Amino acid sequence: MQLADLGEFGLIERIERAARRLSKSRAVAIGIGDDAAVLRLRPGEDAVLSTDAMVEGVHFRWTTESARNVGRRALVANLSDLAAMGARPLGFTLALAAPARLPVRNVDGVLAGLLHEASAHGCALVGGNVSAARETSITLAVLGAVARGRALTRRGAGPGDRIFVTGRLGSAALEVARAERGRGRIRRVPTPRLRAGRALARIPAVSACIDVSDGLEADLRHLLDERGLAAEVDPNAVPRPPRFAAACARLGLDPDPLVLAGGEDYELLFTVRGGSPSAAALARRLGIEVAEIGRVVPAGSGRGAASGGGWRHF
Amino acid sequence: MQLADLGEFGLIERIERAARRLSKSRAVAIGIGDDAAVLRLRPGEDAVLSTDAMVEGVHFRWTTESARNVGRRALVANLSDLAAMGARPLGFTLALAAPARLPVRNVDGVLAGLLHEASAHGCALVGGNVSAARETSITLAVLGAVARGRALTRRGAGPGDRIFVTGRLGSAALEVARAERGRGRIRRVPTPRLRAGRALARIPAVSACIDVSDGLEADLRHLLDERGLAAEVDPNAVPRPPRFAAACARLGLDPDPLVLAGGEDYELLFTVRGGSPSAAALARRLGIEVAEIGRVVPAGSGRGAASGGGWRHF
Repeated sequence: MQLADLGEFGLIERIERAARRLSKSRAVAIGIGDDAAVLRLRPGEDAVLSTDAMVEGVHFRWTTESARNVGRRALVANLSDLAAMGARPLGFTLALAAPARLPVRNVDGVLAGLLHEASAHGCALVGGNVSAARETSITLAVLGAVARGRALTRRGAGPGDRIFVTGRLGSAALEVARAERGRGRIRRVPTPRLRAGRALARIPAVSACIDVSDGLEADLRHLLDERGLAAEVDPNAVPRPPRFAAACARLGLDPDPLVLAGGEDYELLFTVRGGSPSAAALARRLGIEVAEIGRVVPAGSGRGAASGGGWRHF
Repeated sequence: MQLADLGEFGLIERIERAARRLSKSRAVAIGIGDDAAVLRLRPGEDAVLSTDAMVEGVHFRWTTESARNVGRRALVANLSDLAAMGARPLGFTLALAAPARLPVRNVDGVLAGLLHEASAHGCALVGGNVSAARETSITLAVLGAVARGRALTRRGAGPGDRIFVTGRLGSAALEVARAERGRGRIRRVPTPRLRAGRALARIPAVSACIDVSDGLEADLRHLLDERGLAAEVDPNAVPRPPRFAAACARLGLDPDPLVLAGGEDYELLFTVRGGSPSAAALARRLGIEVAEIGRVVPAGSGRGAASGGGWRHF
């Protein structure tokens, strides 16, 4: 069966039915099916809003990934933006554009993937929009909440701040490279670091935070450029997945670019003022591995120049 | 110049620059340019979230409408959903997908149109996402706020409730029909009935509300189906634009289907319990024309049957 057989209202009904299978969230006063959703914040909270899209042929292909995986990754990318702000998720909307010939099972798969992550992270599907289009695109908007004045931002880093990253980097880029070579499908779905983000938002020494979606180097630049700063990073200090070098070697790939420039691992990259807490203390607070990978320096202090010991300037 | 010349980051910068030209809103704690936006509600308010998309070839064509008009209509469609809930707008996100060959002036036009409406209605552009795609699509998510428990919904209509509509219906459908016949471009941009929606949310007798986006009949069905109800509507009581019959006649069109089934006029369709207030009293409260067009009846009471005096059963 194709979308054409279902029709616009049939598709909307299918999405609404799926959304209603999720367990009720206390944050949702009015859920999917009205002109808009109504979501309840706690006293003293601000609303946090972000949007992200996955377009067929650009961010995913039906041939290298299951529809369910596509749906999971779509919501994870959005939830990761909330994590980077230190926010908790409340709900999300789905704008689905797809060709009439798309098999309905692809939509069902995407919905199943979205709802899997929605359920795991307490983020209800509260609204939707469907449209015909020449290619499939899945555009989400996610609403979260954060204690007033406590949101983490990209803007607070200063000279001398230490640079940390959660988890390990490189898996997502390695899997894409492998799929592009026809050596497997994309199966890995990163975990949005929501708990870690909320913990970071409670640590006053944390000066800036971003999620690694474009790649470590590009996202570090976002933190630095906001303030006209530079950084020194030790590539060897950036944690890699187990047996990463061997997996890269089998594909004839240099691991460093995957770790430093690969995107979509959705770990948190953040800066901390002063000498404490340590990476070990942060790991305990965040409930996840944390590595110290470098420090922020004033702009012009050797940017672009090679320096000793394998450190890289940004 | 085409989008390909600008590149992804150039396009993002262009959108952010445009967004920052808007006057600062007190509701925006953290605006465009971070992982997410932070928006401040007033104490006792709930958040209201909705999404809507305009896809090239489906909802608009570059050949029959200016890019600025496309942008204006895109935000109006979203703001109208807030109006239908009785909410006030806070901010919106823009997810733009477009082919690399799209002229940059089209994007500039869409941005100008979005920001025109954003400025008119105090709704800041607080976030965005850009992607390559085979056709242009403009997907917005809009965040509003409403006093807790006061949101208007589609669900409250009951037998005996009177049915009202704001403004006049048919203009949008007439203009589309005219453009399809090569007799003019689409220039009209409806007004989202935000003030009227907020006024309705303060009247306890108002039982249900929806905006007329799919067409009067289809949207009335949304109000009725939620409760398994029917309705009697007098088509002649539905207000039409000045000189509407003559304009239809010139195109060889029957005006009734345009008024009753044409969409995208974005007027508010609502039901009221009991005998008061009158249409005239409502018009004063809402600051806009209001017409009484029929009443809600129990399901099965003549649905589908013709009835005297030109009334139609739904």
